[in-house]
Order: sequence, then structure tokens, then C-alpha cells
Amino acid sequence: MSTQRIAALEGRITNEMRYVATQESLTAEEVCASLASGESVIPANPGHTSLKPKGIGKPFTVKVNANIGTSLACNDPDLELAKLEAAIEAGADAVMDLSTGEGAGELRKRIIETSTVPVGTVPIYDAALQAFEKNGDPSLFRPEELFEAITRHAEEGVDFVTVHCGVTRSCVDKVRRSGRVTRIVSRGGSLLAAWMEREGKENPLYTRYDEMLEILRKHDVTISLGDGLRPGSGADATDPAQIEELVTLGDLTLRAWEAGVQVMVEGPGHIPLNQVQANVVLQKRLCHGAPFYVLGPLVTDVGAGYDHITGAIGGAIAGMAGADFLCYVTPAEHLSLPDIDDVRRGVMASRIAGHAVDIARGNKAAVQRDLEMSRCRAALDWNGQIAHALDPAEVKRRLADRRNLDDVCSMCGKLCAMKVFS
Amino acid sequence: MSTQRIAALEGRITNEMRYVATQESLTAEEVCASLASGESVIPANPGHTSLKPKGIGKPFTVKVNANIGTSLACNDPDLELAKLEAAIEAGADAVMDLSTGEGAGELRKRIIETSTVPVGTVPIYDAALQAFEKNGDPSLFRPEELFEAITRHAEEGVDFVTVHCGVTRSCVDKVRRSGRVTRIVSRGGSLLAAWMEREGKENPLYTRYDEMLEILRKHDVTISLGDGLRPGSGADATDPAQIEELVTLGDLTLRAWEAGVQVMVEGPGHIPLNQVQANVVLQKRLCHGAPFYVLGPLVTDVGAGYDHITGAIGGAIAGMAGADFLCYVTPAEHLSLPDIDDVRRGVMASRIAGHAVDIARGNKAAVQRDLEMSRCRAALDWNGQIAHALDPAEVKRRLADRRNLDDVCSMCGKLCAMKVFS
Repeated sequence: MSTQRIAALEGRITNEMRYVATQESLTAEEVCASLASGESVIPANPGHTSLKPKGIGKPFTVKVNANIGTSLACNDPDLELAKLEAAIEAGADAVMDLSTGEGAGELRKRIIETSTVPVGTVPIYDAALQAFEKNGDPSLFRPEELFEAITRHAEEGVDFVTVHCGVTRSCVDKVRRSGRVTRIVSRGGSLLAAWMEREGKENPLYTRYDEMLEILRKHDVTISLGDGLRPGSGADATDPAQIEELVTLGDLTLRAWEAGVQVMVEGPGHIPLNQVQANVVLQKRLCHGAPFYVLGPLVTDVGAGYDHITGAIGGAIAGMAGADFLCYVTPAEHLSLPDIDDVRRGVMASRIAGHAVDIARGNKAAVQRDLEMSRCRAALDWNGQIAHALDPAEVKRRLADRRNLDDVCSMCGKLCAMKVFS
Repeated sequence: MSTQRIAALEGRITNEMRYVATQESLTAEEVCASLASGESVIPANPGHTSLKPKGIGKPFTVKVNANIGTSLACNDPDLELAKLEAAIEAGADAVMDLSTGEGAGELRKRIIETSTVPVGTVPIYDAALQAFEKNGDPSLFRPEELFEAITRHAEEGVDFVTVHCGVTRSCVDKVRRSGRVTRIVSRGGSLLAAWMEREGKENPLYTRYDEMLEILRKHDVTISLGDGLRPGSGADATDPAQIEELVTLGDLTLRAWEAGVQVMVEGPGHIPLNQVQANVVLQKRLCHGAPFYVLGPLVTDVGAGYDHITGAIGGAIAGMAGADFLCYVTPAEHLSLPDIDDVRRGVMASRIAGHAVDIARGNKAAVQRDLEMSRCRAALDWNGQIAHALDPAEVKRRLADRRNLDDVCSMCGKLCAMKVFS
């Protein structure tokens, strides 16, 4: 079985490349060259039959991922399917199913069956859930169970998997010695760290990395190298543990490329504003230009209830510096699982950040859309403004709520600048 | 009558300087030196007796302004007073009353009477409203009426006024010739431009600038030099008309300083992400380090319904580059007057941007607050997280909605990273 990467290296244009080329107003050859360089990926497991592929990385537009999924404390699969629909409707380019509730396997199959956008997962959650159910401790999984979970996800049609292969014993020791404020906040990272400390062994995803690459290559699952030691507070940002893991991820990127597997690299997390750019520059350099998939980043720790905004600020700055893929953060972050409205607001916030970056990068379609919106504004063409807005339904709702679609807006009334000076 | 600036130049410490020094953890002498340099202002009209003064500029924390006020199409003074209360409760550092509805004068008095934060206004709206009521055209005001409005506001206790003194005939000609997408979007700018084109005369706020400074000095009203030609779309950003006006504002800044009047300079508006920093650097250089008061800036034109987020992104980047004072943008921007919830969300979005900048600049109190929040997170101390959040009520509401305040969060349930690796 081949992968998009192998095809690209051989100069073979695939249907997925053609589809992405049309979406991005590029030639299929340009898409192919970008994939071959490793600067982009098209996560597209052939088993995911409902997929409309997306390109992530250079030279494509910035993409947005929405996390959904149950937890043990909040397990309503139908609600998660409704979130999937809301996320796609709001314009998410990918979703990750982070389910950890009972029945997560069944839900995952339904999500893959339904989703038109690439689906990502974190297979270690499956192994942890089994361990928790069997032994009452989620870190009591066996490495075999972890590899079985990866195989299962790959066979079921998952397009990309987060695997925390860079969480080595050396980095975890650094966390222990560093006096971090929020030790480990990645669930996958914490599970592996706990397993390693108890067993006194190295991370199996690191020691058996080549074996894992074989599984992923077989189904063209894109590897998303997780940042298990990402900072969970601004005070921990860009610390030795985080950067040592990133150095390892750079090495693992090369090994995945050699194996013909598509790679993205995940990034933080909580990062003060003045460190965001440096984090992107570092990742791009250390990971040889592989696409950078950032979680936020969150530029303050105190924005709970509004972390979609905190994340949009960080995402925009990261995007300007070269980040390619923004994982949304919802207003529920740090507090609870998001509801459907949170999902929608999270996607919109990240889309605004991504779109602003596309404009700044000179993407023609993005610039044109803004231009058309502003022309409608100057013409007081309210229906045109609805049509060109990122969220037409929300604009329509707000306009209907407060004024008729005539040419008077309640903001200025007859003192409209557009009319006073026309 | 003296001003904070005159006192600072004479090395006299005022009560307002002392109050601000305590708020900012600085010495009164540091505040005094900053005011004397012109890099900061304390808008504090002695007639505004309920005021708790705020410092705006270097070396203070970033401040946030909330616009409120009626329009002819939406005139409910009690609602605006409720917005005033909501804005202050949400943490706004200043409010601007932009009322243009009938009875605006009465409402302004009530706002000044009630507001504990500095109050700003745009006196030309008064003159325009009178002209509209008398002649059906808001630009048919007489210069005398404009100066009467400025005097009236100063006497009533307004702390800062936006006056579009830099909108000269030359800049307006540039707008006409440039093929701007959204010609003039500042109401004050459009009124003056229409007046000048009809009368064939120069802007009276420019020709009679010294006379105006006399009025403002008498009541220590801080002048906020409006950017009447600010871009209303990304396509118009940083264009010759905008920059010519900014050059003029730099000159007017020096003249105000010579007259003992405190000065801020207002800035855009719609600015693509990659031009925000340049705009701040330009303003700081051309306006001799005077505080920069930005509206957003909005980094895309298509975010209607979510422009508080678009503005928070721009505000954070502007703040990093040196902007001092963020005018909030609400989710209602471009669509209608905001309601109370919009006001709250607008203030919070700008506060997140400002706080993120304060952290990036190394402000000790800001860094400490984040650190304490993160310590509570690591300890799963939910009440501590409520206490340290920017919006404790919202965090409390979200936690109460979805889970009890015990140590299990619905996001991860038993798979909590903090517990798995502790």
C-alpha cells in the first residue's frame, strides 16, 4: 500500500492531490512537490470513504481542527455526533475524536463514517480506557494494547493519529527536576510518563517507532507527533523539557519521511505572546519544515471562559510565523467538555485567526473575500455582507434581531459616515 | 487652571499621580516623569468628581476603553447606563459616550455623574445632531457650534475628547483621488470632510487648534487626536491619506504639549496582520512617543458577529508593538449597537489582549496572576481558579452548569493528566 508521500516522491499525481489543488487554486504538480518536500500533508486514509481531502502545510491556507469526543464523566455519543456536524458546518477543516468514555470504539466508527473532513485520534486513550476498566488505573496498559489500538484505528479509516513518541525518560526526568508549575498537561504524555516511571523502561512508542511507522504506512495514516510535554502554563513555556522533546520530534520526523509516512508536528499550548514566534521558528528549523499543528497557543492562563479568544490571538501570531494548522480551543477549555455552541464559537475564533494569516500571507482568495465584503459595506449592501461574512447565519441573525435590512443601521442611524461623505 | 501635564513638567506630584502610582506599583515620581515626557496621560477633568483616575501609556499596563451611547435609530438612555455599569463591572478602564440620539446631553451628564472611570466623548456629534435636527443634514453645523460643544463637554467634566483635527483638505483630496474601498468610516471625519468640501474651507479644528487647546487646558481635558481617515477595510490600510493625517497629528501633538495639554493619538481600524506592527512603530515615531489608542485593529473585514475576536487579535499584536490603549470592538460591530452582553464580551476580549501584552512586557502583577491561576490548576483547586480568572462569574457559571466543584472535571474525567502523572 502506498501513501501520498510515496506517490509524491515518485512524482505520481493522486486524486487527493488533484482535489486539494482545486481547493487551493494551485496546480496538482505544486501540491505534489509540496508533499514530496514534507512541508505539507494530505491526511487521507483510503478506509475513510466519506472524506473530502484537505491539504495542511505550505503553501496551503491555514487549516482549523476541532476536538470532539466523550469523557468518562460526560458520555453522550449522539451529542458528539451533533458536535461533529456543528464543527463541519462552522467550517472546521478536520476533527479529532478524543473520546475516552465507554463505547468510544463504536462512536469512532460512526464519526469516520459520517465525517467529510479528515479524522484524527489519540489511540493511547483506547489502551488507557481498557486499563482503567480492567485495573482502575489508566496507565496500567501493556505496550501490546497500545499497538493494537494504533492498528485498529488505522484499519478503521482514521486519517491522522497523535502519538507521543518524543516523551522519553530523559525529558520526563527534566520535568521532575524542573519545578514546572503544571507538570504534564497532555493526557497522552502523562500516561506514558506514568507508565515509564513505574516500569522503569523507555517509551514504547519511541523504542518501537519503526514498527509503528509500518502500521501507519500501510493505511497512509498521517503521523501527528504529539507534544506530550507541552507547557500547561505560561511559566513553563519553552523550557528544557519541551525543547528536548521537540529536538527528538525533529529526528522522528526524518525517520517517518524515510519510511514514506506523512508527518505533522504538534506544538503548544500555553505560551506568552513574546515567545510564540520563537516557538514556531524553532519547530520549523528542528523539524525540517514539517507542518506545525498548534494548540492555541494560549497567550495567558487566566482567560478561562474565553479561551477561544486567547487561542485565536496565539494562533494568529503563530500563523504569521509559519504555523500551518490551528487546533481550536473552545470557551469551555479548562472547565468542561464543550457544548455545541462552544464548538461553533471555537471553530469561528480559529477561522478568524487563520483567515487573517492567509490575508497577511497574500493568499488571493482570502484577500478577495475581504475586498468583496468591504465593497458591500461601502455600498450599504446588507445581503452582500451576509453572503461574504465568515458566519453568514450569525450576521443574518444579528441583523434580523435589531433592524430591518434597509439602509439604516442602528449604530449610526442618519449619522452614517458612508452617507455623510459619499 | 493647571493640568496633570503642567504639574508634571513642574515636578509637582498630584493626587491623581499618587493614585495611579499605587495602582501600577510604581512610585509617584515615576508616574510624574512619564507624564512630563508625554509618554502617558491621566485623563482627569476636575469636574468629574466620581472619577478614580487611570494612567494610560508607558510604563503603565495596557488599558481598555468601551464605547457606549445612543443613536438616532436606537435611543434608550437607561440601556446605555446599564451598559456603562456592565462595562465597568467587566473591567473597562475607560468609557466613551458616543451618543447621537435625542437627549444625548442629558445622558452625558448622567454618565459623567455615575462613571468611576474616565469618560471620553466626541463633541462634533453634538454639533452634528443639532444641525440634523435643524437642517436635516448633520454636516450643516457652524464652527461656532462645534466649539460650543467642546466647551460644554469640558465644563461638564468630560476627561478626554476625540477631535479630528488632522483631517485637512489635502488628506480629504487624497481620499477622493485614491479609489479607497471604504472612503471615510469615521463619523467625525466624514462630517468634517463633508463640511470642508461644501464650504471650500479648511477644517476649523485645524485652523483654530490653539483656541481649542485653550478650552481643553482650562479643564485639563486630555485631547485624543482622532484618526478621521482611518481605514475601514484592509485594502485601504496604511494608505497615503491615513499616513498624511498621522504626520499632521504628530505636529499637533507637539503643539498640545507646548500648551500644557495632555495628548493621546488614535489609530486604526482595519489593518491586515502583517501591517499592524508597522502602524504602531510609525505612530510612536511620528507622534513623538505619545500614547497610542487603537480601535481594534481588525485584522480581517469578514469577521462580523465576532469582531471582538478580530479586534483582540489586532490589539494584542499592536500592544506588543507598543500600543497603550485598546478600544474594544464588540460582536455587534458593523451590524448594530451592542447590547449589554456584547459590551461584556467586547471588554473581556480586549482585556485578554491587554493582559497578554502585559505578561509579554514582563509586568510583575500580570505574570503573578497567571502563575497563581496555574498553581490552582495544578492543584485542581477550582475555587482558586474562579478567583484568579479574568471573569470569575463566567467561570463559576460554567462550572456550576456542568459539574460540581469537586476534583473531577468533565473534560477528562478519571483520565486527568494532572492526576495520572502527579
